[in-house]
Amino acid sequence: MSRHLVLQTDFGLCDGAVSAMYGVALSVDPDLKIYDLTHEIPQYNIWEGSYRLYQTITYWPEETVFVSVVDPGVGTERLSIVAKTTDNQYIVTPDNGTLTHVAENIGIVAVREIDETKNRLPNSGESYTFHGRDIYAYTGARLAAGVIKFDEVGRELSVDSILKLINPEPKSGEGIVTGNIDILDVRFGNLWTNISRELFIQSDVKYGDLLEVTIENNNRQVYKNAMTFGRSFADSRLGEPLIYVNSVDKLGVAINQGSFAKAYHIGTGINWKITIRKTNNRAYN
Amino acid sequence: MSRHLVLQTDFGLCDGAVSAMYGVALSVDPDLKIYDLTHEIPQYNIWEGSYRLYQTITYWPEETVFVSVVDPGVGTERLSIVAKTTDNQYIVTPDNGTLTHVAENIGIVAVREIDETKNRLPNSGESYTFHGRDIYAYTGARLAAGVIKFDEVGRELSVDSILKLINPEPKSGEGIVTGNIDILDVRFGNLWTNISRELFIQSDVKYGDLLEVTIENNNRQVYKNAMTFGRSFADSRLGEPLIYVNSVDKLGVAINQGSFAKAYHIGTGINWKITIRKTNNRAYN
Amino acid sequence: MSRHLVLQTDFGLCDGAVSAMYGVALSVDPDLKIYDLTHEIPQYNIWEGSYRLYQTITYWPEETVFVSVVDPGVGTERLSIVAKTTDNQYIVTPDNGTLTHVAENIGIVAVREIDETKNRLPNSGESYTFHGRDIYAYTGARLAAGVIKFDEVGRELSVDSILKLINPEPKSGEGIVTGNIDILDVRFGNLWTNISRELFIQSDVKYGDLLEVTIENNNRQVYKNAMTFGRSFADSRLGEPLIYVNSVDKLGVAINQGSFAKAYHIGTGINWKITIRKTNNRAYN
Repeated sequence: MSRHLVLQTDFGLCDGAVSAMYGVALSVDPDLKIYDLTHEIPQYNIWEGSYRLYQTITYWPEETVFVSVVDPGVGTERLSIVAKTTDNQYIVTPDNGTLTHVAENIGIVAVREIDETKNRLPNSGESYTFHGRDIYAYTGARLAAGVIKFDEVGRELSVDSILKLINPEPKSGEGIVTGNIDILDVRFGNLWTNISRELFIQSDVKYGDLLEVTIENNNRQVYKNAMTFGRSFADSRLGEPLIYVNSVDKLGVAINQGSFAKAYHIGTGINWKITIRKTNNRAYN
Repeated sequence: MSRHLVLQTDFGLCDGAVSAMYGVALSVDPDLKIYDLTHEIPQYNIWEGSYRLYQTITYWPEETVFVSVVDPGVGTERLSIVAKTTDNQYIVTPDNGTLTHVAENIGIVAVREIDETKNRLPNSGESYTFHGRDIYAYTGARLAAGVIKFDEVGRELSVDSILKLINPEPKSGEGIVTGNIDILDVRFGNLWTNISRELFIQSDVKYGDLLEVTIENNNRQVYKNAMTFGRSFADSRLGEPLIYVNSVDKLGVAINQGSFAKAYHIGTGINWKITIRKTNNRAYN
Repeated sequence: MSRHLVLQTDFGLCDGAVSAMYGVALSVDPDLKIYDLTHEIPQYNIWEGSYRLYQTITYWPEETVFVSVVDPGVGTERLSIVAKTTDNQYIVTPDNGTLTHVAENIGIVAVREIDETKNRLPNSGESYTFHGRDIYAYTGARLAAGVIKFDEVGRELSVDSILKLINPEPKSGEGIVTGNIDILDVRFGNLWTNISRELFIQSDVKYGDLLEVTIENNNRQVYKNAMTFGRSFADSRLGEPLIYVNSVDKLGVAINQGSFAKAYHIGTGINWKITIRKTNNRAYN
């Protein structure tokens, strides 16, 4: 029985790159079932690739094989690896930090280096720039189709050896919770923080409470105002900001039917901090 | 035998949202065949979601299950429903007007409310913001896979009770036809009106006839000029405007290989009216 | 056994057009396996449609049926055809130049005109503007599903009769290689030339050599500078330009992790010439 193969890249869908990956995979096994995570990861943005994997893979069946190619270091000495997760799924990827969020939030139990002498598309020629097609899609397809087993990928590596991006922990204490803006819910402009619902609830916050939200970029205040902790967008008026629990069980910040990110020019990453505290005061202007 | 499952959302393809819906559906049945209608419905634009369903579903096989999630009211009291069409297809959607065009042009024979106590992804947690994944994809997949039957969705509702958007009828008389610009053929900038070929032909118009076309936005004239009624774009010169019968058998307005919508800043909806009458006069400038 | 069906269009994914093509194909055979090449070919850009086919189809299994619809001439006298390639694949397309690159680089062994009296979606009505759905997807699906055989498509045409776009050959001599910028690696802004690795190597160039690259648009110099011939991006520093062998075994020009096309406003086509010669001089400013 073949497993599902799921592809993620920063290639976009404007040219033939993703389709060539599909073709390679179907040449391995014409009956393989192939799906997309997304191909719109911003170019070279390993952090976002890592996050989208984490956001998605728990909803896929056990044994699913993911291929993630955000690979600014193609052609360098960076390794090509396959990781096996706690939930018995596989991720085929360059070892460049793409596994950060999965390693920290889900868990990785084994890692193998792809032996490119065996696991490379035959006759893939003199091109050293499209490992997504020649190595990752090819190896992912062979794994998903059962042509090779995990232990035939290549030599085993230490799980601790894989490269991880800096990913600060959120903090809680004295009624204040501090974290980072990890990523955007791009389409709707909502901010997704790294503060989990669990951590937040510990500071004795309930739905309906008024909260003071401060957002800083490199210590410069970008936003400071009060908003309600709502169970869903429906708990705020149209155009009103709110704090809510997002679909990965962490805190989000939104404007009901508006774009918070665009309204206040908010970005993401370790230089974007958010501080939340309980308040009774709506006047912050 | 499982049916096809077709997904439509306003989520875009930049993040993992649609992929999570696929994963949930394949967790219900790993062999399910899943397809996309579009995920580029403009955010919260229920009208366009309704139109794209109508434009497409008649080309899909009987028994196909459509899931459409354009859901600005997620978390409010709006119902989640499954509708069965005259053509024996199913649409899983929030009851917010998404069924307007299908109800009026194709027909709905039965509606059931989704009983969320039974038809919700197990362990979908404290998030109240992603019903697309937790309720709609899950229920659509179970219906398509035959895990539940239509009558197991939940209690039956009256077909007349479903919410419909305002959708004015086109009018014809004294050689003049009046209607609305319903939507754009986005990529090519063509206008799609709500005037059917049948209604138009009644006013004794033939291919090759010269027509005066007036477009108004809130009673302000935006465009007034003459153009030919062509069988296809080839009946006009490059860059010339024309009236034609579009792929849903209604009147379209186009510039041959140009964008009519961009050229004259034309929008869509009930405030955008179009009037067409026969003329012999090409001089309107 | 059914073959894979692969669709390419300039329709975009914002509306229901591509989904209607899928529905038509699945109505022919509910078990058909359908995939996308891309639907983001710029509107009416036959050249790019031709190139994306060439770039991709060799990675797909034998017997795959491709449908390519970039069709500015819909409704004119242009023929609808099916071509059979040297590699035993099929391409269903308007005869408007879409086969240029495949014919020249891969080879076409037979061509048949689609007999629209037999190979048109039943009841596809009075619309003459959506042959992608009514003729091409329908015929491609019937061919892929084995409902019709190649010789049932319609009358045979001469292979030489198919329309080809002007496509100049690159030239080499006296240590200078001259060619065209054929297309962009859109997402990353790399230039893809029509100069093959083979031709280039003949002029005695090795990885690591310094090259003088001149780019002209209609005889106006747009860029002139020296860069290294690298095996991959990793052979240049971040932000440095390089010449490399791309994934179709031709020369590419890139800025490592930057966009060469945006940096110097480079376009594509027969008016964009590139000249490469060996040099020892880095001073060109």
